[in-house]
Amino acid sequence: MSRWQPGARERLQQAAHELFAEQGFAATTVPEITARAGLTTRTFFRHFADKREVLYADDAEVPAMIATMMSEAPPAAQPLAVIVEGLRTVAETPFEPRRAALRARRELVRTDVGLQERDLHKRAALSEAIREGFLARGIDTARASLLAETSVTLINVALTEWLDRDDDRSLYDIILETLATLRSSLN
Amino acid sequence: MSRWQPGARERLQQAAHELFAEQGFAATTVPEITARAGLTTRTFFRHFADKREVLYADDAEVPAMIATMMSEAPPAAQPLAVIVEGLRTVAETPFEPRRAALRARRELVRTDVGLQERDLHKRAALSEAIREGFLARGIDTARASLLAETSVTLINVALTEWLDRDDDRSLYDIILETLATLRSSLN
Repeated sequence: MSRWQPGARERLQQAAHELFAEQGFAATTVPEITARAGLTTRTFFRHFADKREVLYADDAEVPAMIATMMSEAPPAAQPLAVIVEGLRTVAETPFEPRRAALRARRELVRTDVGLQERDLHKRAALSEAIREGFLARGIDTARASLLAETSVTLINVALTEWLDRDDDRSLYDIILETLATLRSSLN
Repeated sequence: MSRWQPGARERLQQAAHELFAEQGFAATTVPEITARAGLTTRTFFRHFADKREVLYADDAEVPAMIATMMSEAPPAAQPLAVIVEGLRTVAETPFEPRRAALRARRELVRTDVGLQERDLHKRAALSEAIREGFLARGIDTARASLLAETSVTLINVALTEWLDRDDDRSLYDIILETLATLRSSLN
């Protein structure tokens, strides 16, 4: 067996998602996932720190994507413009094409305290990435934290709304509406 | 020994805070805390679920305080007025008198991943209490989540700023300034 199986990561994710759906998250073990994927547990742990991470693997690039986007925004761009552009990027690239997968993950998170914790951590890590992006743009600490937390709130509230809906309104559209709601609520 | 020692809770908190300051959070055990307080571990666990909870015991009433305040606000009060009044209550009663204790806790949280997790949970629980308060006031789900998360962000950002400062500006004053910053950042 070669060290890097071609497509191993995707095969493991596929097998894990099937097993989680069939028998629940808690009841599924790493050996069951690797057996279904026809791979070893060693290969599993080369790709994922634990079985929770399988569910978050496709979001792994989000903080780095945001850091890049924020560092490339024109120096004169206002924070709100940076936020809106960042939210558009995140909405359209890693989230929009994965509505079914994100819905399935949300169902699993509801059943598992460990996954809820992982969710809180991912939220905090995303906020930290945005905060650092604003600090690097010369925004002071308190305002950078405020803008970062608010960005994450906008993503999360809009994501929940979008996953709840059955129509084809885009996530980005709902984010803009959520921003408008926040703005009007504060005035 | 009577079932409820008078002042047991306060003696345990005092002993725990001393030991955390002397030897760190991770190195301190529940038996050390109870030995210093002159009480049994059974008494400890009647008051606290674990040693982390000792640090959050004085915040325990915050979600219930917010729920009461929100249910007693006049039905016609706008969400922003409810938020501002709620933040004033939280700032003035459970937080303002505890600046030194909150600073000490923040230092401990920085040293311990388990405490960071507990902090994220407390944040989520506070947000949930505020969200439920808004739902009970007839606000729709998405807006209730948005207002709740934003309230928690305002508290947390202002609390950090207040703990960082050496002057005698009040926490409530900094919360109002943080709200003004958020409002201007979104316009």
